[in-house]
Amino acid sequence: MHRHFEDEFEDLRSDLLFMASLAEKAVELSIVALQTRDKKLADQIIKDDARINLLEVKIDNACVELLAKHQPMASDLRFIASAMKINNDLERIADHAVNIAESTHNLLIEPELKPLIDIPRMAKLAQGMVREALDAFIHREVARAVEVCKRDDEVDALNDQLLRELVTYMLTDSKNIARALSLILISKNLERIADLATNIAEEVVFMVEARSIKHHLGKNDVHEEGKK
Amino acid sequence: MHRHFEDEFEDLRSDLLFMASLAEKAVELSIVALQTRDKKLADQIIKDDARINLLEVKIDNACVELLAKHQPMASDLRFIASAMKINNDLERIADHAVNIAESTHNLLIEPELKPLIDIPRMAKLAQGMVREALDAFIHREVARAVEVCKRDDEVDALNDQLLRELVTYMLTDSKNIARALSLILISKNLERIADLATNIAEEVVFMVEARSIKHHLGKNDVHEEGKK
Repeated sequence: MHRHFEDEFEDLRSDLLFMASLAEKAVELSIVALQTRDKKLADQIIKDDARINLLEVKIDNACVELLAKHQPMASDLRFIASAMKINNDLERIADHAVNIAESTHNLLIEPELKPLIDIPRMAKLAQGMVREALDAFIHREVARAVEVCKRDDEVDALNDQLLRELVTYMLTDSKNIARALSLILISKNLERIADLATNIAEEVVFMVEARSIKHHLGKNDVHEEGKK
Repeated sequence: MHRHFEDEFEDLRSDLLFMASLAEKAVELSIVALQTRDKKLADQIIKDDARINLLEVKIDNACVELLAKHQPMASDLRFIASAMKINNDLERIADHAVNIAESTHNLLIEPELKPLIDIPRMAKLAQGMVREALDAFIHREVARAVEVCKRDDEVDALNDQLLRELVTYMLTDSKNIARALSLILISKNLERIADLATNIAEEVVFMVEARSIKHHLGKNDVHEEGKK
């Protein structure tokens, strides 16, 4: 009755890729909802998060089962250990998309503060980082993972620039304060999505090279807020 | 030359407890630095984070080694799998303390906006949750872990209340905007620390009962921003 290790291992890989595609899609749609001021779509993202949460639990259980039943050695063991952490990172990425959808709700109460330029750019960058990091993981490609880590600085710079600009809006007219604050929080969520993608990429290097570049990449030595 | 599984397992437990105490201390000191307007202490927290990052890597490697060398079964396997995730959560908690120290730097440029009441209260609650969650993990106590999850709502409520109050400060006088924004970000960091403590507590239940209460606790179904 026991299925082969290889089959279950392959299932884990495809579940994780599916999880990544759901998380990436949630980020993409959260920005579409923001740009098109689409309340229904924002609601949908919040609702669909339940599915991602269920998949996280499924993947987590599959990892522990693989470890228990097959006692894999060396590189497979590291892959599964990394998969558990990456799974968690992906779920958090989807949570940030939900945060963005909730901030969008707040923004829809008033007219648009300003045309959105930097936020969609940050979102595109962050999404690309999530996708690249996952591809690097599945194909065990260190060079690709290192590239993802480097791109985190770009997102941090956009976030800093946007923060300054939005504070200026707040200072100019107090009627802008609520909307500017919502946009600042959205920008922070995107920055954190990029940080989580960076975590995933660092995990890939750890897995492949059995060493940690975490906390050794200078400016990329960053997890949550982009400045540590 | 191989050391006994029990010895290495005990080392892992004590390293993780030490990691938790460092993370909790970082949170505590970040609020002391904020309250006493102590720039040196804020700098120290940022500097000391390197030590926590190194310990995270050490614990991570120890977990993978334990899995590889001893192929533990059932409950020990789950403990180690959980330890890997909790280790990551603790490192993120320390990162949030660094964020608070950085926001404190910004606040020291100007005189105090208002006496701090809710922020130290939130910090005490969040620290207590981190400590309780770790104790629940080490002693495998589900009831204690469930209590931690319940307390997350209290921190979320304080964060919401503080956000409303600080926006009012912003609206009253544009000179308050920069400082109120820094305090909003500090409050959000504390909220996220409580969320991470909740993650740890959920992980304890998962480990002990081999099932997941993640995403099944209604209002505690929360990871990063307190409203999912």
